[in-house]
Amino acid sequence: MAYKEIARNKAFGGHVVKYEHDSTELSCSMKFNVFLPKESEQGSVAAIYFLSGLTCTEDNFIQKSGALAEAAKHGIALIAPDTSPRGVSIQGDDDSWDFGTGAGFYLDATDPKWAKNYRMYSYVTKELPALVNKQLPIDGSRVSIMGHSMGGHGALTIYLKNSSAYKTVSAFSPIANPVNCPWGEKAFSNYLGSNQDEWKQYDTVELLKKAGDLKIDALVDVGTSDNFLERELKIDTLKETVASLGRAQDWTIRYQDGYDHSYFFISSFIADHIQHHVKYLKQ
Amino acid sequence: MAYKEIARNKAFGGHVVKYEHDSTELSCSMKFNVFLPKESEQGSVAAIYFLSGLTCTEDNFIQKSGALAEAAKHGIALIAPDTSPRGVSIQGDDDSWDFGTGAGFYLDATDPKWAKNYRMYSYVTKELPALVNKQLPIDGSRVSIMGHSMGGHGALTIYLKNSSAYKTVSAFSPIANPVNCPWGEKAFSNYLGSNQDEWKQYDTVELLKKAGDLKIDALVDVGTSDNFLERELKIDTLKETVASLGRAQDWTIRYQDGYDHSYFFISSFIADHIQHHVKYLKQ
Repeated sequence: MAYKEIARNKAFGGHVVKYEHDSTELSCSMKFNVFLPKESEQGSVAAIYFLSGLTCTEDNFIQKSGALAEAAKHGIALIAPDTSPRGVSIQGDDDSWDFGTGAGFYLDATDPKWAKNYRMYSYVTKELPALVNKQLPIDGSRVSIMGHSMGGHGALTIYLKNSSAYKTVSAFSPIANPVNCPWGEKAFSNYLGSNQDEWKQYDTVELLKKAGDLKIDALVDVGTSDNFLERELKIDTLKETVASLGRAQDWTIRYQDGYDHSYFFISSFIADHIQHHVKYLKQ
Repeated sequence: MAYKEIARNKAFGGHVVKYEHDSTELSCSMKFNVFLPKESEQGSVAAIYFLSGLTCTEDNFIQKSGALAEAAKHGIALIAPDTSPRGVSIQGDDDSWDFGTGAGFYLDATDPKWAKNYRMYSYVTKELPALVNKQLPIDGSRVSIMGHSMGGHGALTIYLKNSSAYKTVSAFSPIANPVNCPWGEKAFSNYLGSNQDEWKQYDTVELLKKAGDLKIDALVDVGTSDNFLERELKIDTLKETVASLGRAQDWTIRYQDGYDHSYFFISSFIADHIQHHVKYLKQ
């Protein structure tokens, strides 16, 4: 778990720092970015994990979301991991943009071909927090999770499976029901095999059905001009599931008129999301 | 001057729109981005031109600066051109990152090899404003100019040569005295030939010496950890020149402790710069 700092830029009074480390879970070298607000120079601070979408690296969110301004305002750290193992050279991992490299789907693969490296679920929920909490001025008892698209799927499923570890959750344009969409079917059938019961443990809609009376206050934004809205994201299914379970009051699901799937959309509403997290992180 | 819209993304209630057009000045096809705030749907709005630095395209500022949030707050448009002609295939134009493609230096080349295409000064001051003012809801009588690094050089020199056309000016990390730094010497000797009197018409420090009693209220930010500060930017020379001319009150030159040359630095202070421009654009 040796790690090293490979870049540091001052930003909004704090610093964006890029680290590289040898990941035990993924059996490869991984990079991640952290925004440490100036308050972290005086002691540990609360943090939001941000999980990115297909094709992204640890950089997209940190560079394009505009999140640093709002995080700095509240003295909150941001932690942005990569989206898959890197440089592991499994046959087929670079054949398509929506599977393999850049498309880890925040699960632990069971198919023998992928099982050694594609363990982003354990990486994000265990290895990375252990590293960050030990090495950086992050208060591991005050963290929350957020994500976009594939990372929205990651954030929601990880929260639902580990609700005691995260203070709250929010998502932009999440893949809400991957067992029923092309991206999810492709990823899950390859990483997890054909048994669809295995798939359901990584599906927000399916996890919700088993969540019982788990208290949630989730914020979800999606653009009405998102090209992936109907086919891949299935936000209507999420909304219907929440309503049918009588949990509509736990979920703020907003359809933002005219917005698409891009970082221009994320940046337009990132301040709302950070404020949502701050409510819980400051408690 | 035919132009077409090639991308449109909703952002902060307005839209980021990318246009492509055949440039007469540059004899090639050019792209630029415009942020049009929602107020532009009701009528013409004021605008800030942002000139980018070496290696950048029309995208860097729009995607990474965080400027949209503050521009939207004030109902101001942002216009982000590219940094050089593109696809013109002049021998040597792609040999280095600091000359040729991505490095137009906002001048009109006189060396025969470059003179046909490398006319970014006329492109930015004449052709692009004419196009934008005619085709878009931009109030051409309320515009200002801002830039970073090579684009900071561009913004300051263009303002000093055309102060009646722009309401105000500001710059991040500008190349303030290009006739006396390696980047400028390389660019100017190639684009303009060996006569250094020609060079001086594109040099902020030299133009200032001839500016007489021109009223200026310029904001300049530079990071003290900028790797280019001493060798390329020459901000001390700018500050000394301003002082020796008795014009210190016209220039707010801030050395920002620990910041570097990156967009993390720009994004940390972009709200200040936009507020500086708004003071004059709203008059």
